[in-house]
Amino acid sequence: MHPIVTLIKPTNHDAGERTRVYLDTLTKPPGSLGALEDLAIQLSAITGELKPTVTPPAVLVFAADHGVAAEGVSAFPQEVTAQMVANFANGGAAINVFARQIGAQVEVVDVGVTSTLTIPGVTLAKVRAGTANMVVEDAMQADEALAAIDVGIAAVERAKTAGANCIVVGEMGIANTTASSAMLAAFLGVPVTHVVGAGTGINSAQQAHKAAVIERAICARQASPDAPLEVLAKLGGLEIAAMTGAYLASAANRTPAIVDGFIATIAALTACRLCPAVRGYLIFGHRSQEPGHDIALKALDAKPLLDMGMRLGEGSGAALAYPLLQAATAMVAEMATFADAGVSDNAGL
Amino acid sequence: MHPIVTLIKPTNHDAGERTRVYLDTLTKPPGSLGALEDLAIQLSAITGELKPTVTPPAVLVFAADHGVAAEGVSAFPQEVTAQMVANFANGGAAINVFARQIGAQVEVVDVGVTSTLTIPGVTLAKVRAGTANMVVEDAMQADEALAAIDVGIAAVERAKTAGANCIVVGEMGIANTTASSAMLAAFLGVPVTHVVGAGTGINSAQQAHKAAVIERAICARQASPDAPLEVLAKLGGLEIAAMTGAYLASAANRTPAIVDGFIATIAALTACRLCPAVRGYLIFGHRSQEPGHDIALKALDAKPLLDMGMRLGEGSGAALAYPLLQAATAMVAEMATFADAGVSDNAGL
Repeated sequence: MHPIVTLIKPTNHDAGERTRVYLDTLTKPPGSLGALEDLAIQLSAITGELKPTVTPPAVLVFAADHGVAAEGVSAFPQEVTAQMVANFANGGAAINVFARQIGAQVEVVDVGVTSTLTIPGVTLAKVRAGTANMVVEDAMQADEALAAIDVGIAAVERAKTAGANCIVVGEMGIANTTASSAMLAAFLGVPVTHVVGAGTGINSAQQAHKAAVIERAICARQASPDAPLEVLAKLGGLEIAAMTGAYLASAANRTPAIVDGFIATIAALTACRLCPAVRGYLIFGHRSQEPGHDIALKALDAKPLLDMGMRLGEGSGAALAYPLLQAATAMVAEMATFADAGVSDNAGL
Repeated sequence: MHPIVTLIKPTNHDAGERTRVYLDTLTKPPGSLGALEDLAIQLSAITGELKPTVTPPAVLVFAADHGVAAEGVSAFPQEVTAQMVANFANGGAAINVFARQIGAQVEVVDVGVTSTLTIPGVTLAKVRAGTANMVVEDAMQADEALAAIDVGIAAVERAKTAGANCIVVGEMGIANTTASSAMLAAFLGVPVTHVVGAGTGINSAQQAHKAAVIERAICARQASPDAPLEVLAKLGGLEIAAMTGAYLASAANRTPAIVDGFIATIAALTACRLCPAVRGYLIFGHRSQEPGHDIALKALDAKPLLDMGMRLGEGSGAALAYPLLQAATAMVAEMATFADAGVSDNAGL
């Protein structure tokens, strides 16, 4: 168990309920803003405030490589991880564009890229140079998984110190849908073929190969589904561990975290297995096209805000969902009440 | 037929296809941004540009009353239309809050509120003081419907003159889901009970009464489903006609229009029946909880961007979707290409 877990308290149910009551005084039919109202209630429960702010958001992108890439499971070669880190540093990736739109600083963290990076603006926090190939040996050792969790925690602490009121977590790591699918199958005991998809764009024959690789890894590693750190260390990835740490730290800081797609949701699931109270601090940004995402979302009883058939990662879907959090807080803070505006309510009906 | 129809040309398919090709050069797996890529392609087809802008947006809210409110079909009394117009003018309604978030000017247009309004900041363009009760007589005359269409066209022309590059259309009008349900049933010949919902919040017994009122109106009015102006005049509303005009004018100006929920979609359907080329200029913002919305969306082959269980109107769902249009344009304008960024693509696989 990681010591941060002792700092995580359940969300403030009473604060959420106060917001629920207040929402019905605003000039709109009760409940007519649907999921935006649920979001406002959750943001109050997270922060304890009737009128919280989620501005500014911070985007944290964790990058790492995967030994299992050697099995030919991805549409892209492994060097793309490092190339995309450079692209993030230069501001040219999708997550950079969407982060600018929402006024978020982007911190890119090398938690385990295979090659040695010397890119200005990239935080060097390499725990090891990529995981081992999980078909052959454990992806990493337990102490390495804990160290990578600490990298994620430290990144959230830096963002909080810089003033962030909402955390968007993203990732880059060629073959990380393979690690995520393996973790999900291990956690839930579902058939591997149900949780394997196209990743960055492999065809159906390549997907069958990817599923077989995952089956071999799961059989060889024998991770206990009741031991989240073991699942993470044996089948996971360094960036997945860092993301897990980031969700734990967001919860410890009573700060909303927007969960991105499949890989992020597996990290969120891991964080919730380590500490169920984390769940209340998580807002799910979008539903990915990756088939395992639906299964992971169901396991977390999560309904994402967006459903746009995306499958990019990097935190892109979470960043796109952020304006809805802003709208939810603005609704509470700025809308007139029936009494203020002199509008008749429907109390007589 | 309204003369503006002759000014509406089909969207530019070739411009859209050029954007489709360009998107696959950007540093992301092909197609991995899903519906955001479709949106970028549509925005290029609308504007003819590879890198269009949708900034700034303009919000146009049309308000009018409905004679059929006398039948007791709404959860709110009729005076709420005028009270909410005052709330819009004071900046306290949901649409004001969401418009500020997206940097949009809001123009509120009185196209047919029953009471005489003298509210600073409200455009006075009253065609008549509310429609007639469609159970008893035609809601309005054909020339009044055309005049209300012209009010919508004029509002878009003012917004374009002020620099708007995207149009969000909203409405306020107690009982306007009743008019919209009647129009939809008349257009499509579907059973009234399939297209009647809770509106602003009536219970199931009240919904049965609302359906019966609509049945009586449809039987009494005998509007031809192939005559969109007749359906609009006999069963519609002044704000619905103005919204129809606004969509026609957006298309004539090659400017994207974001369609809001049920009532807006009925106006959009009317515009598309008047001129099928309008469809290409419409982006559907959200899926409303109102049951008729799904049926209207299917008739338009439309898949909305958001699905948040909302049912407020005012343009609120369309305004919430606007940041996704911004993101789509920023993706095209700002993302690095594989060549620019020195990232390996997956061409070899």
